[in-house]
Amino acid sequence: MEEVPGSLGTIPSFSLRLGQTLFSSASLLLMSLGVEFYSYTAFCYLVTVMGLVIPWSLTLALVDGYSLLVKCPLRQPGILLIIVVGDWLLSVLTLAAACSTASVVDLLLHADRSYCPPKLCSRYQISAAMAFFSWLLSLASSLFNLWLLPSL
Amino acid sequence: MEEVPGSLGTIPSFSLRLGQTLFSSASLLLMSLGVEFYSYTAFCYLVTVMGLVIPWSLTLALVDGYSLLVKCPLRQPGILLIIVVGDWLLSVLTLAAACSTASVVDLLLHADRSYCPPKLCSRYQISAAMAFFSWLLSLASSLFNLWLLPSL
Repeated sequence: MEEVPGSLGTIPSFSLRLGQTLFSSASLLLMSLGVEFYSYTAFCYLVTVMGLVIPWSLTLALVDGYSLLVKCPLRQPGILLIIVVGDWLLSVLTLAAACSTASVVDLLLHADRSYCPPKLCSRYQISAAMAFFSWLLSLASSLFNLWLLPSL
Repeated sequence: MEEVPGSLGTIPSFSLRLGQTLFSSASLLLMSLGVEFYSYTAFCYLVTVMGLVIPWSLTLALVDGYSLLVKCPLRQPGILLIIVVGDWLLSVLTLAAACSTASVVDLLLHADRSYCPPKLCSRYQISAAMAFFSWLLSLASSLFNLWLLPSL
């Protein structure tokens, strides 16, 4: 069987999963630490989605790490299909959350200074950017695994 | 060759394209007619994206209609790949626009009545919903054509 770079149980896939965990944790921490995020729907949504993405990516990073250690990649079409669909669903949710947060931050910045002091607002912006990076990586994982699926 | 329902040159595909054109036109009209949409970045973005989706869907609806009339579906992998990638890109942009608009409307509704009289705000909401439907149809088109691609 040919080896697709980035598919489950390879070093690129492991790096992608670590990147997803890192970016989504950064996004969650920047949004929730010491900030009243629950006053805006979009920010609550971002926190919820990041709370879903982190355990998912972390679990798959562990699976990848285990596969690399025992040198025996997981190659079952059913499980791979679940991973592709899960990645894809989470990437759609992450994109939606990132866009909502970015547009709300933009509105807060332009509408009224009192809602959003510059220091807080830049934290929100970085959080949205981190969610966006997490979307990109999650999409890449989904595409690489989808590429592998027909060859099983 | 098997016929995939919803792929290029079939009646379901033609209906999907018509639906996309209809929903995105409705979203554009609701957002731009008599409303000062250019005061919010998210709304400008929605109008821009809808201005891209409408000609794309309309052109492909015409291609589908022509294929149905002459009963000779277009089956060239290169062209199909361009259509799949184009549909996918536009669906990502549409999702982003719909989410941004929805979150900004939600914020305007809760933050301050003076920014957004109820009648205008409900128009914005319907516009975001229409963009969301357009995203769903555009994603369906992309998936159906992607499904057809390996069999060519």
